[in-house]
Amino acid sequence: NKKDKLSVSDYVEGILSGNISILSQGITLIESSLPKHHIIAQQVIEQCLPHAGKSVRVGITGVPGVGKSTFIEALGVQITSQGKKLAVLAIDPSSERSKGSILGDKTRMEVLSVDPNAYIRPSPSAGSLGGVARKTRESIVLCEAAGFDVVFIETVGVGQSETAVHSMVDCFLLLMLAGAGDELQGIKRGIMEMADLLAITKADGANLQKAMMAKAEYTSALHLYPPAESGWDPRVLTCSSLEKDGIADVWNTISDYIATTKENEFFQNKRQHQSKYWMFETINESLRESFYDNVAIQNLLTKLEEDVLSNKLTSFAAAQMLLDKYFDNLKE
Amino acid sequence: NKKDKLSVSDYVEGILSGNISILSQGITLIESSLPKHHIIAQQVIEQCLPHAGKSVRVGITGVPGVGKSTFIEALGVQITSQGKKLAVLAIDPSSERSKGSILGDKTRMEVLSVDPNAYIRPSPSAGSLGGVARKTRESIVLCEAAGFDVVFIETVGVGQSETAVHSMVDCFLLLMLAGAGDELQGIKRGIMEMADLLAITKADGANLQKAMMAKAEYTSALHLYPPAESGWDPRVLTCSSLEKDGIADVWNTISDYIATTKENEFFQNKRQHQSKYWMFETINESLRESFYDNVAIQNLLTKLEEDVLSNKLTSFAAAQMLLDKYFDNLKE
Repeated sequence: NKKDKLSVSDYVEGILSGNISILSQGITLIESSLPKHHIIAQQVIEQCLPHAGKSVRVGITGVPGVGKSTFIEALGVQITSQGKKLAVLAIDPSSERSKGSILGDKTRMEVLSVDPNAYIRPSPSAGSLGGVARKTRESIVLCEAAGFDVVFIETVGVGQSETAVHSMVDCFLLLMLAGAGDELQGIKRGIMEMADLLAITKADGANLQKAMMAKAEYTSALHLYPPAESGWDPRVLTCSSLEKDGIADVWNTISDYIATTKENEFFQNKRQHQSKYWMFETINESLRESFYDNVAIQNLLTKLEEDVLSNKLTSFAAAQMLLDKYFDNLKE
Repeated sequence: NKKDKLSVSDYVEGILSGNISILSQGITLIESSLPKHHIIAQQVIEQCLPHAGKSVRVGITGVPGVGKSTFIEALGVQITSQGKKLAVLAIDPSSERSKGSILGDKTRMEVLSVDPNAYIRPSPSAGSLGGVARKTRESIVLCEAAGFDVVFIETVGVGQSETAVHSMVDCFLLLMLAGAGDELQGIKRGIMEMADLLAITKADGANLQKAMMAKAEYTSALHLYPPAESGWDPRVLTCSSLEKDGIADVWNTISDYIATTKENEFFQNKRQHQSKYWMFETINESLRESFYDNVAIQNLLTKLEEDVLSNKLTSFAAAQMLLDKYFDNLKE
């Protein structure tokens, strides 16, 4: 196995020199569940860390049907045509590789997939959101060390993964369809409030007028939200991936956002905040796993949950019994 | 000390007979930090539980200046005048009793505080949000066992306490001022999306027209949100506590909401969901406390946090080191 033969320094040198094949192998190592791969991956990441952090990280979400692939292709080409290097990653905790995952089919992005300045990486196979998030964040480190200027993190706008993506990017972009009705869009509550930029896709042909109306509606709705901490007023744009209309404007707006937030230091503060967030989030998730995966707890939990639901026990008394059991169990 | 002399059955009998003095002493027991009080309180709560659950629980929030006290007084009198018994509790994790707390000054509600069908309980003294939430939820059990038909949970619209209140009530009411600008209102992101009913206060005199405009604006904004799981479309109302205008309408709308959600069973499902939520929330908070209050962890955390912020270590590697240390420590 070739992967096992590369040393940590082989990986690091390859990645730092921009070798895409070695970058891909490094990410595969990060995604591996084998402990020996995990150990090497951690050393590679640690040595790449001082060279990371220089890209612009953009989160892109929107439900299936919004035209995410064609949008990413159009925006990606816009970026690479300026001589910038673009990496496209994905978070899709629900996917299983065998069932096909987002970005799994590179042929969806015909132009970008053969663009020498672009690197498209399919989403890792299914796992817990925490696990998938860790792998993606570590993959960002390797991509940045390999010299990518812009990193896209794609996700599907239907679940918790938006919050995870929002917590690892500098700029969060929400794609919307005009006139589809929010029920159809399937956007979860709170997602719209996370967006720095809302792009209404497929603003062409017979759809153009609806798109313009949606833009006006969302613009006035966004004004009712409390001001964002970033000091940036979220913008609403329309675009057509088909006619390449408004795509340059999306990239210019992202660039404006980055410039504004670097100027007022929100950018730097957010990055630091995110680093701490993921440290604490990882700790908290591991503490919960240790508790809920404990077999003695699982049996008692089922029983006490019934007592709580039938009003025999308060939520707090049940929790206390479970906690006592858990800590006794750990000491044994 | 009188409190120590009452037995568990004295408390339970007193509360079930609607004795307000004993109810108050029971809540004081819940709020006490003494372990012996805690043991008695748990027994009292357990015996009250089968008699609890029959009230309508209403969360009321809004920033200082919105007129919360006069609103609660006006709405409260509306309710008690129909022969219903009303208890008013408060959650205010930031308050310290010595510095004055919300509801602490009963004279703010001149009529309600002497109404025989109303019981106003000042917020417990400062503590963790989890602790304060537990005390409030347990106090609801005692109030319901004492025969209260409606329970208000008041909170200040400036922090995390809204989420806690939202997770323990059937209906969540947000008070807003017209034309104050969202910056001034200080409403946190996401709070508006939690509301089942938005009431624009001080809709009287020169303010009336502004209030009507705000109502139209918020109504159209709420339509842009995805539909609520409750099957209920959040409403916007205007009211004047001064002129008692629109107050009956607020109560009728709350009653409609309760009827609708009981009919479609969202009400019952939400209660069960909340019981589970608080069990899991209590467990998760205790797990976090056990970790972060550990002295060995605190020292290492400070060091590793610096390493993460200076890019010497990833968030995940730091988390793993801390977790290893913690679990080793627990076994010792």
